[in-house]
Amino acid sequence: MADDPAGSVESVSGPVSVTVDLAERSYDICIGDGLLASVGERIADLFPGARAVIVSDETVNGLHGQVLRDSLGRSGVINHTVLVPPGERSKNFAMLDRVVDGVLATGLERQDVLIALGGGVVGDLAGFAAGIVRRGMGFVQVPTSLLAQVDSSVGGKTGINSPRGKNLVGLFNQPSLVVADTSVLDTLSTREMRAGYAEIVKYGLIGRLDFFEWLQANHRAVFAGGSARAHAVRVSCEAKAAVVKADELEGGQRALLNLGHTFGHALEASVAYDAKRLVHGEGVAIGMVMAHEFSHRLGHCSQEEASRVAEHLSEVGLPTKMSDIPGPSFEIDTLMSAIAQDKKVERGALTFILTKGLGRSFIAKDVAVDDVRAYLEDCLAS
Amino acid sequence: MADDPAGSVESVSGPVSVTVDLAERSYDICIGDGLLASVGERIADLFPGARAVIVSDETVNGLHGQVLRDSLGRSGVINHTVLVPPGERSKNFAMLDRVVDGVLATGLERQDVLIALGGGVVGDLAGFAAGIVRRGMGFVQVPTSLLAQVDSSVGGKTGINSPRGKNLVGLFNQPSLVVADTSVLDTLSTREMRAGYAEIVKYGLIGRLDFFEWLQANHRAVFAGGSARAHAVRVSCEAKAAVVKADELEGGQRALLNLGHTFGHALEASVAYDAKRLVHGEGVAIGMVMAHEFSHRLGHCSQEEASRVAEHLSEVGLPTKMSDIPGPSFEIDTLMSAIAQDKKVERGALTFILTKGLGRSFIAKDVAVDDVRAYLEDCLAS
Repeated sequence: MADDPAGSVESVSGPVSVTVDLAERSYDICIGDGLLASVGERIADLFPGARAVIVSDETVNGLHGQVLRDSLGRSGVINHTVLVPPGERSKNFAMLDRVVDGVLATGLERQDVLIALGGGVVGDLAGFAAGIVRRGMGFVQVPTSLLAQVDSSVGGKTGINSPRGKNLVGLFNQPSLVVADTSVLDTLSTREMRAGYAEIVKYGLIGRLDFFEWLQANHRAVFAGGSARAHAVRVSCEAKAAVVKADELEGGQRALLNLGHTFGHALEASVAYDAKRLVHGEGVAIGMVMAHEFSHRLGHCSQEEASRVAEHLSEVGLPTKMSDIPGPSFEIDTLMSAIAQDKKVERGALTFILTKGLGRSFIAKDVAVDDVRAYLEDCLAS
Repeated sequence: MADDPAGSVESVSGPVSVTVDLAERSYDICIGDGLLASVGERIADLFPGARAVIVSDETVNGLHGQVLRDSLGRSGVINHTVLVPPGERSKNFAMLDRVVDGVLATGLERQDVLIALGGGVVGDLAGFAAGIVRRGMGFVQVPTSLLAQVDSSVGGKTGINSPRGKNLVGLFNQPSLVVADTSVLDTLSTREMRAGYAEIVKYGLIGRLDFFEWLQANHRAVFAGGSARAHAVRVSCEAKAAVVKADELEGGQRALLNLGHTFGHALEASVAYDAKRLVHGEGVAIGMVMAHEFSHRLGHCSQEEASRVAEHLSEVGLPTKMSDIPGPSFEIDTLMSAIAQDKKVERGALTFILTKGLGRSFIAKDVAVDDVRAYLEDCLAS
């Protein structure tokens, strides 16, 4: 960034822009080091005269809130801040009510803008709130976790969890802008970086074997930061944008993005979203390995391919099987009921994302419940 | 209705259909006596293979739930029922949570359909729930109050109240079908009929002097039922459909539908939505008279025109001034703060629907706060 003369080595990678092409709801994802300081200017351009409310969590606000507020202040954007506790458990009705009330308390109107500053939890919760306050106000995503930058901030899915399952309540609410400042990722823990990395790997496994192989060769550089990390974020956003463009409301192909998520969500539900035991990206990592193993079991791909997935995820330090999750072991009935409740069920038939091999995922709409149960029972027994 | 050989005199008016033309979100409003028994067939046609969940209140369910369930059963539509307590106070976050949880508990999916059976409260609450369960499921409105048939069930506005104001949280969520059975209106109290009638008068006052004059001549027949009532419902739905088509998301002209609503909402907020003191339609009636008087005060219309509005509303038994509301008198600061919080505020300027005369309403975006306060103070002093 030109306005960041104190930039570190990462700042050699200039900002890039990926467009999510959705006709009148199209928007840009700006990716690069130091972009947080440019948010005020970008919002003043996009929403002339608007005021802003930042929705963030206490941790992220402490790390990055002031940089954002200073940026807004420099561009004359009057702003307020509403905070929620960090963690997946904030994605519930009570916290949605609290955020909505906090936004209404600012007196902001439909023409003003809500800025989600944080990881996936904040983006999902704040994006939902932005869609329902006064039946919809302006909305900008400023994702601060790797997972949010490569996945949850892009594509408009927002929502909260229900006691009956994850993300069962929410909206499709596309933002008007996503600003992914890759230098803020330096404040993440290794565990958080790994969790986001699982979603990056997912794009390779869905449809880009070349990208998966690039990750196998370059994962250390991605974790280290700089241009390799920005490249991985950009390719991930491009892959997601292409899928979202083709199927915004998940009538079909968008479901491919759920690779690893049906098993992953069931694991998250089974630990009651306890982040000490399992965070979302870890659930996805294990779920992707399971999706490949289950695909092998159904005759769709080779054991070698399933093993390559597990090896790569394991190499970066991600869990790859249920027994890697600390705490009590899982119950088959709990897992099966979580899978049945998962919203990717259609008319009673289980829909799974399976794969014909690395980078060759597909939507299987007719997966037998008995096959899933038998596979999980074997996993639990091993 | 051909399939209702036991029809009363009302059934001489055959069903009519009004289309709300919103491109891929277009839908029909079916209006006529006895149509409740046809809902199953219509849903089976529109959502082949879908299951249904009826969301209703305890009162309406007792009166009409079984007819609807029988109709669904005859067409093979598996159905469940979720009930809420009757009344405006059910439009809150806690009840939304309860409805959403009740719908999720049925195991219904995105392709299934939520049927809102009830008045405006049920339609607003259930329509909001339909829009957020699994990020949106099928949605059909079966309005059972006159107010819901002529106003709230048409046009896709759904939502709940906030402690900070009415309808401040919600969604634009168009239904796929509205079925307005005019014979169910026979179960309404006179007070409920009058409240709905206020919204019918509104369409005349917004832009159709001929309809207002027809109502002056025919209001007894409208209250009595039969073809005059069906005609009033149809003209109202046509008027609303035209406005919604022109401006679905209330960027401009749709605000005309708020004639009488800024004052009306302030009155409702001031009595804390206590239906014993004031129901929505009564607030609108008083608000419309106030909007005309305030327009006169600002030099836009004559006192005679404001008086004609009050006379007609009074003739059908509606309240027309604040002092008609039972209970303690109103406080100017409470009213002003409710008006300031009302969502029809844009960038701090007060937006009011004023009128240049009967049937000549317009959007005034620059109404001075001092003028509103002075008018209200005079109302309170008189």
